[in-house]
Amino acid sequence: MLSFENDYNVGAHPAILRRLSETNFDPQPGYGFDRYCESAKEKIRRELGDPAAEIFFLSGGTQTNALAISAMLRPFEGVLCAATGHIASHEAGAIEYTGHKVLPLPQKQGKVDPQDVSDYLENFYADENRDHTVFPGLLYLSEPTEYGTIYSKTELQKLYEIANRFSVRVYIDGARLGYGLCCEESDLTMQELAQCCDAFYIGGTKVGALLGEALVFPRGNAPERFFTLIKQHGALLSKGRVLGIQFDTLFTDGLYYEISRGAIERAKELRAILHEKGCRFYLETPTNQQFILLEDEEYERLSKSVALSFWEKPDRSHTVVRFAVSWATTREDLEALRAIL
Amino acid sequence: MLSFENDYNVGAHPAILRRLSETNFDPQPGYGFDRYCESAKEKIRRELGDPAAEIFFLSGGTQTNALAISAMLRPFEGVLCAATGHIASHEAGAIEYTGHKVLPLPQKQGKVDPQDVSDYLENFYADENRDHTVFPGLLYLSEPTEYGTIYSKTELQKLYEIANRFSVRVYIDGARLGYGLCCEESDLTMQELAQCCDAFYIGGTKVGALLGEALVFPRGNAPERFFTLIKQHGALLSKGRVLGIQFDTLFTDGLYYEISRGAIERAKELRAILHEKGCRFYLETPTNQQFILLEDEEYERLSKSVALSFWEKPDRSHTVVRFAVSWATTREDLEALRAIL
Amino acid sequence: MLSFENDYNVGAHPAILRRLSETNFDPQPGYGFDRYCESAKEKIRRELGDPAAEIFFLSGGTQTNALAISAMLRPFEGVLCAATGHIASHEAGAIEYTGHKVLPLPQKQGKVDPQDVSDYLENFYADENRDHTVFPGLLYLSEPTEYGTIYSKTELQKLYEIANRFSVRVYIDGARLGYGLCCEESDLTMQELAQCCDAFYIGGTKVGALLGEALVFPRGNAPERFFTLIKQHGALLSKGRVLGIQFDTLFTDGLYYEISRGAIERAKELRAILHEKGCRFYLETPTNQQFILLEDEEYERLSKSVALSFWEKPDRSHTVVRFAVSWATTREDLEALRAIL
Amino acid sequence: MLSFENDYNVGAHPAILRRLSETNFDPQPGYGFDRYCESAKEKIRRELGDPAAEIFFLSGGTQTNALAISAMLRPFEGVLCAATGHIASHEAGAIEYTGHKVLPLPQKQGKVDPQDVSDYLENFYADENRDHTVFPGLLYLSEPTEYGTIYSKTELQKLYEIANRFSVRVYIDGARLGYGLCCEESDLTMQELAQCCDAFYIGGTKVGALLGEALVFPRGNAPERFFTLIKQHGALLSKGRVLGIQFDTLFTDGLYYEISRGAIERAKELRAILHEKGCRFYLETPTNQQFILLEDEEYERLSKSVALSFWEKPDRSHTVVRFAVSWATTREDLEALRAIL
Repeated sequence: MLSFENDYNVGAHPAILRRLSETNFDPQPGYGFDRYCESAKEKIRRELGDPAAEIFFLSGGTQTNALAISAMLRPFEGVLCAATGHIASHEAGAIEYTGHKVLPLPQKQGKVDPQDVSDYLENFYADENRDHTVFPGLLYLSEPTEYGTIYSKTELQKLYEIANRFSVRVYIDGARLGYGLCCEESDLTMQELAQCCDAFYIGGTKVGALLGEALVFPRGNAPERFFTLIKQHGALLSKGRVLGIQFDTLFTDGLYYEISRGAIERAKELRAILHEKGCRFYLETPTNQQFILLEDEEYERLSKSVALSFWEKPDRSHTVVRFAVSWATTREDLEALRAIL
Repeated sequence: MLSFENDYNVGAHPAILRRLSETNFDPQPGYGFDRYCESAKEKIRRELGDPAAEIFFLSGGTQTNALAISAMLRPFEGVLCAATGHIASHEAGAIEYTGHKVLPLPQKQGKVDPQDVSDYLENFYADENRDHTVFPGLLYLSEPTEYGTIYSKTELQKLYEIANRFSVRVYIDGARLGYGLCCEESDLTMQELAQCCDAFYIGGTKVGALLGEALVFPRGNAPERFFTLIKQHGALLSKGRVLGIQFDTLFTDGLYYEISRGAIERAKELRAILHEKGCRFYLETPTNQQFILLEDEEYERLSKSVALSFWEKPDRSHTVVRFAVSWATTREDLEALRAIL
Repeated sequence: MLSFENDYNVGAHPAILRRLSETNFDPQPGYGFDRYCESAKEKIRRELGDPAAEIFFLSGGTQTNALAISAMLRPFEGVLCAATGHIASHEAGAIEYTGHKVLPLPQKQGKVDPQDVSDYLENFYADENRDHTVFPGLLYLSEPTEYGTIYSKTELQKLYEIANRFSVRVYIDGARLGYGLCCEESDLTMQELAQCCDAFYIGGTKVGALLGEALVFPRGNAPERFFTLIKQHGALLSKGRVLGIQFDTLFTDGLYYEISRGAIERAKELRAILHEKGCRFYLETPTNQQFILLEDEEYERLSKSVALSFWEKPDRSHTVVRFAVSWATTREDLEALRAIL
Repeated sequence: MLSFENDYNVGAHPAILRRLSETNFDPQPGYGFDRYCESAKEKIRRELGDPAAEIFFLSGGTQTNALAISAMLRPFEGVLCAATGHIASHEAGAIEYTGHKVLPLPQKQGKVDPQDVSDYLENFYADENRDHTVFPGLLYLSEPTEYGTIYSKTELQKLYEIANRFSVRVYIDGARLGYGLCCEESDLTMQELAQCCDAFYIGGTKVGALLGEALVFPRGNAPERFFTLIKQHGALLSKGRVLGIQFDTLFTDGLYYEISRGAIERAKELRAILHEKGCRFYLETPTNQQFILLEDEEYERLSKSVALSFWEKPDRSHTVVRFAVSWATTREDLEALRAIL
């Protein structure tokens, strides 16, 4: 069936599969001490212009979020987050499972406003009872957001500056980072993003890998004994090479950006088709996800020939669905969609 | 460098890489709802002769242990385990991180004795202060054990019977299950093993997969909403297919056993070489790991040409090392080792 | 200094101190197995007309909430709560520390609306992605609320009925239960309240005890091995008698209600004085707490002669303060306050 | 019934009850900010000759242990402890509930040997796989131990020196500290003990208080925002004064030591009676607990007229029981016991 369900509905970019085969019989140490991991880390450090950056390869987004956030927080701290942030809404309480509260902030199309962050923190420190409450220790952002929107360089800088003022660190969830950086509306580079946070991850799973996320602590401030914490959270792969080989491939000859730009191209074509067919945008975004409002019957009918993602029910007779494209979406897929719509 | 370091030092069995390539562009739902996962589960159920078995694919052993054990335990319970069990000694406190105590039992060459289990449980229930202590809720076994030894069918049956008598459930860590079942000394089938426990996992990572373990709840008694718990623990892969495709391949035409038997053959040849060279066995085992006592200088010298695993230091001048073979070890590797020794 | 700071600013009702002295040298078993605990439980069961009710004495409200809620929730569940509920806002993340999410609901003067609960639960079960999210397992209510407001019998019945429809249990925080039940506006008895929930606690600390809360599981449905859980949470007192003696006294000859009615009388007199002096009520309540809006300078001036509680800052130049009375507030205290205002 | 069951079978020292009455109507701030807590802290600081010591009053031993230990450990660390230590055996997994492993050490009559600690730490750092295991972060000692034995000054100094060498901190559980310091065999003062550890608590519950333990961080190194952590663990009393008043009384005019010496006197008389009656000592100790081996029928018979504590069953026909005395044990009690034996 034709699928615009998400950006993880097929396998890996062929270059990755090829590289897995080529390296298959090269015996290497386990747990990420192999030379592919080393090489991948080196390439990412160069990309960031940050030789001190510490990098860890993990398997998935929720795992990376829970591990990084819990390791960065002190026991009396929680994490600030847009009410629609992934950790607040779609990770089955993974952050709370680590013992920390998610402190929801107002959101606009998935983004938090610097002013809201600043207000929250000022009110917090003006509250005489604050010692009876959870301290804000970290600000979680996603780039692009769960709604496909993006932060500008100025916004990120402002957020980082506000956070720093209150000794709050900043963590950026980059599950779809490539799509955020490579869209036309973005004025950010990965290096600039790294300068506006204390940790972020470069999403692999949704940008061409079989699985894998590269967690980066810029300027070398990884939490103490983070390797042991990875093991403790059940997130250490014996064959760490599986992740290293993939990121080494993605950061060779700019493949990560090439993959991302391809998806952004397809996304523009998708938007054109959706407009042409008179679809009602619930949210039109610069990245690879588009949100469309359908009547429930339309949704049911369409679901028979195209795999889509249920997003939410704004009322009893409508459904918001997500159309997602990825590096693997083809012109043929788009033509087939046009024909169906 | 020649490597007998472990059974996860290379990539995957070629059939698995081939199958990943063949299926790469088939769009499938995420999170394990793809048809490869379904097919793999069906094959495992058939292998076990248990149509009600519930199966979940996870990424690694520590993750599987922590998730399964914490989901099976009630809040006031802990898990009984040989003092040398992986969860007791080498998982960085992953079980305790979930809030549960590991209750160590005496061990002999990595195994627990049914009598010791029975004594522990009888003493526990004879203690008038037991309500102030952790209740034994689960018995963790590994087959083969961390020391390469195996339980016989009779031993497993006896352990399961004792556990049942005290309402203690049994969980078996099968990180190297194939090697345990396929060695000559074993009188167990996977089906029989499944009948002696409440949960176990079929190790993929160390038996030919890139990564992946198949957690089985025989007779359909998975913990409530286990899917949500997988997500909560950061263990849910978006591209669940990556695990499904691998287990589907491993359970097609008996590949899992073929891989395991190959390694057992190599292990016999390794033992012959070690004997021939007069090495001192710290522990000679029927499976794919052999433990050799070396003087520290020997260890240092040998380490220059062969990758081995440090096991422990029994005294100040000796080191126990582990030689491991896997499905990927070749006759040439063994000849090269013979030459070096 | 004159104090209207809270309802826990003095020691215990004299009858309690007397009883502690009288019983002081009677040797009794530890951990709540003494005869005073037994007697207190029996009296509470009679008060509730529920011989099967299971009762546990604990030291404080946050402890009771965290222990009861975490024991009642399954690992994949969270607790619904007014955004202003004590567990959501003023317990330093104690619930999250147990691994569970607090799911905030809209609130009106501290109360949740049955319709909002029903909407939340219907939307939750209409969401196709719900397996990736925290399940609502419990509804937390407080009676009276943190804002001094109360639920009517009809409201509680409706909330319990809605919760039951969705297999959500109900827990009521009764830190100030006596003041809620004994105010004129209340149409509830303790027995009726017990019939509208799966667990609740009778607050002692704020209603005449030195410390202590009586956690009640009506109709005998306490979580498994709750005694061991109390110990595990560090909430078991060696001298359990200290709590038993106090509750036995409070439930002898209706002392609990007598104390509560006294405070409600004083609260009415307080309201009269605040009105007489032209104070601006931020919230006027039927129970023992009144919320007054002051200009910041007024607040500062007043604080020099009367201890009050900071509540919140609605804007940069005003402060909301809480005036609280208790069983120990005297007519003289009120006259002194009138003089100062 | 005559009771030698434990040292918490009656209420409080009369001076404490008196003081609770005298201060009852003095309005004071909550949460430990009252003047009685301040005064008690000041007296303890003077006793320790340590004006920088930070002191927190908590309700019970398990609570204090779990809170202090979890706050002192980093996430990748566990706590070393005699296998018979209270946290290892009798706290229902309270430490593991906070996510940390208890690392058991060999014990002799409840004590750990400096050499065993040193060996453990040396082996730990010699293990090449240590990054996959729990790091030893803290050494838990009890003074006196769970078996009534005591550490000498030299032993404590040696243990602290060894721990420091490996960056391991030391925590001392002083549930019965008074009895340990005041027995004839002890060569320690409280001040000296404080110099050999990073935290310890002065037990109140078992030394004359209704409830309460004073947790001390000598030299001002309390964990960050420890007040908020107390709240988070449900260990903060609204009426903190209840603990402050008791410790203020205990540390006025040396009452804590007077109480302790009285119990030690009674313990000597108890030992004399037990010897006179030909009882078999399982363990004869210098402090207030004595362990006697009884045949099961004797135990049963004796239990009818004297309340004793079951300790353990060394074999199928014998039981070890504990006789405990306290500040409240009288000469008449001892005479009555002599008559029964």
